[in-house]
Amino acid sequence: MKPNEQTRRLMVGGVPLGGGAPCAVQSMLNTPADDAQTNLDQIERLADAGCEIIRMAIPQRSCLDTFQAVCEASPLPVVADVHFDAEIAIQAARRGAAKLRINPGNIGGPAKTDAVIDAAGEAGIPIRIGVNAGSLDDALKARTDLTLPQKLAASAEEYVGYFHARGFDDVVVSTKASDVPTTIAAYRLLAEKLPSTPLHIGVTEAGTLFQGLVKSASGLGVLLEQGIGDTMRISLTDDPVQEVRACWTLLAALGLRRRGPEIVSCPTCGRCKVDLIGLARAVDDCLQAVHKPLKVAVMGCVVNGPGEAADADIGVACGDGVGVIFKQGETLRKVDETAIVDALMEEIGKL
Amino acid sequence: MKPNEQTRRLMVGGVPLGGGAPCAVQSMLNTPADDAQTNLDQIERLADAGCEIIRMAIPQRSCLDTFQAVCEASPLPVVADVHFDAEIAIQAARRGAAKLRINPGNIGGPAKTDAVIDAAGEAGIPIRIGVNAGSLDDALKARTDLTLPQKLAASAEEYVGYFHARGFDDVVVSTKASDVPTTIAAYRLLAEKLPSTPLHIGVTEAGTLFQGLVKSASGLGVLLEQGIGDTMRISLTDDPVQEVRACWTLLAALGLRRRGPEIVSCPTCGRCKVDLIGLARAVDDCLQAVHKPLKVAVMGCVVNGPGEAADADIGVACGDGVGVIFKQGETLRKVDETAIVDALMEEIGKL
Repeated sequence: MKPNEQTRRLMVGGVPLGGGAPCAVQSMLNTPADDAQTNLDQIERLADAGCEIIRMAIPQRSCLDTFQAVCEASPLPVVADVHFDAEIAIQAARRGAAKLRINPGNIGGPAKTDAVIDAAGEAGIPIRIGVNAGSLDDALKARTDLTLPQKLAASAEEYVGYFHARGFDDVVVSTKASDVPTTIAAYRLLAEKLPSTPLHIGVTEAGTLFQGLVKSASGLGVLLEQGIGDTMRISLTDDPVQEVRACWTLLAALGLRRRGPEIVSCPTCGRCKVDLIGLARAVDDCLQAVHKPLKVAVMGCVVNGPGEAADADIGVACGDGVGVIFKQGETLRKVDETAIVDALMEEIGKL
Repeated sequence: MKPNEQTRRLMVGGVPLGGGAPCAVQSMLNTPADDAQTNLDQIERLADAGCEIIRMAIPQRSCLDTFQAVCEASPLPVVADVHFDAEIAIQAARRGAAKLRINPGNIGGPAKTDAVIDAAGEAGIPIRIGVNAGSLDDALKARTDLTLPQKLAASAEEYVGYFHARGFDDVVVSTKASDVPTTIAAYRLLAEKLPSTPLHIGVTEAGTLFQGLVKSASGLGVLLEQGIGDTMRISLTDDPVQEVRACWTLLAALGLRRRGPEIVSCPTCGRCKVDLIGLARAVDDCLQAVHKPLKVAVMGCVVNGPGEAADADIGVACGDGVGVIFKQGETLRKVDETAIVDALMEEIGKL
């Protein structure tokens, strides 16, 4: 469960990646690529939520001025996401990108790739090599002796070798797939074959919130629990702030990093005499504004509550229309059901 | 990633557990324990969502009539969840329970445990031994040479030995914790020490929907991916239907079982020109009523869309105000943004 200490330490702006650094949290802007202010507003919200590195797509050259303006004003390091046009990547490196994200399979061949590598080298920034199933080269795609994860890993290995041969070592690699077992298998192969290369992990096109959380938490959970992953993005078809919240929730669940409170709440059962779902949601909402790493318990039953949540910093055990507020297993006071949320938040404020 | 074929095959009503059977999906009723009809209504909703085994708490003896009425009318096998009072467990076995769930640590000592074992034996039903941190015996709790997962596993091992010594082999074991690393470590020990005992896996008190999905999918994902887990419950402080949906989503994500469609949708980025989040959510909602195992793609960008989602059964790639409906990578037709959901559902209906 420790971050990979074998990988090479890189810097993305001021954020360390690899070499035992904690897994860094990323997201991607989904605001129009040609309007600096809406992008900066979204970066602000993402930074508040705990985002550490932000990626921005630059779909055409006309967006480079906006990209530069965003880089200049952004509190977070900005990664330029570029496809098809190497010139955009070169310009992005010169205009403030903290990292480039390219797929050598679609950037226009070796000469163009070399030009991008040289531009990144001059700017002193790393490059993420993002390999995916769609852009595998035809020879590799056609091989019947390899599984898809083996093809993805082989392609990544080949590109990393190419970059190293050109004297460029500051590479991060990703081989995301929308299929969880493929993603897990591909990253396990990468960790084995490229032990010193930092890995950017993610399940791509994971879907809307519910399915996206389940696919990403299971796929990335398996990898992180095994010590694989130097930086992560959880892709959701939702507000990017939810992506950041999901990353932190997963890192906290695995005991790797913690930011903000964790809620321990029982699933309700036939023993429960209050609206525990509503109560837990209300507490959850209030806790979004708290950044202390607390464990808060919301339990449906007075008999088991304080005992089962004895390790919580603060909590409530509910009875018939009442709640008993407790702190590290010790009872503080009994309040009416309607006053539970306020009482809990008041005690949290005192901690 | 295969279900554990080493575990002993048990039956919970008509549902097989262990011995290579697919991991069975469980949930727990949260309707009042003294009203049969509301429980049966909830069972109906859970069965529709794909629940295979349902658990019901029997908090006091006066609820046994209700329990019996529920068992008689339920389309799903009903597990009696009993704490503290062995007589309730004995009566539940005689009145239609398909399985008992007890914690020998709180049922009143060896003589009471023996009576429960005998009642289950006479009824021909299995027992789940549910061990948790709160009810470890004092001698075990006090040992400083063991970690919590080791204590949980040791306690479970001792109980299973006790049941076997009494000639009762139809046991399932769980050692849930609200902490994910503890849960993972405890179940790994159990799988090693009790290789022939079916395991009921879960992360307990995982919280409200968002955090609960992340904690459960990561913890259970790690176990299932390793082949551990004969039946599962995802505990959420939410409608139990969401628990069932979460189980299926996780099993599908790991490629273990599939029920209903999977949605592949890209996280939006600066290239996207439609309200993809709204669109993906609308498609997701419509798909809840579809039980065919389909892969449906909702992509934000016409250029990459059909290519990246070539393996989808059906999908849409959006452009500026339009959507191109495609089937297994082949374009079917182009529709206005407002007509996308209807066109997609129409094509799904034809499959």
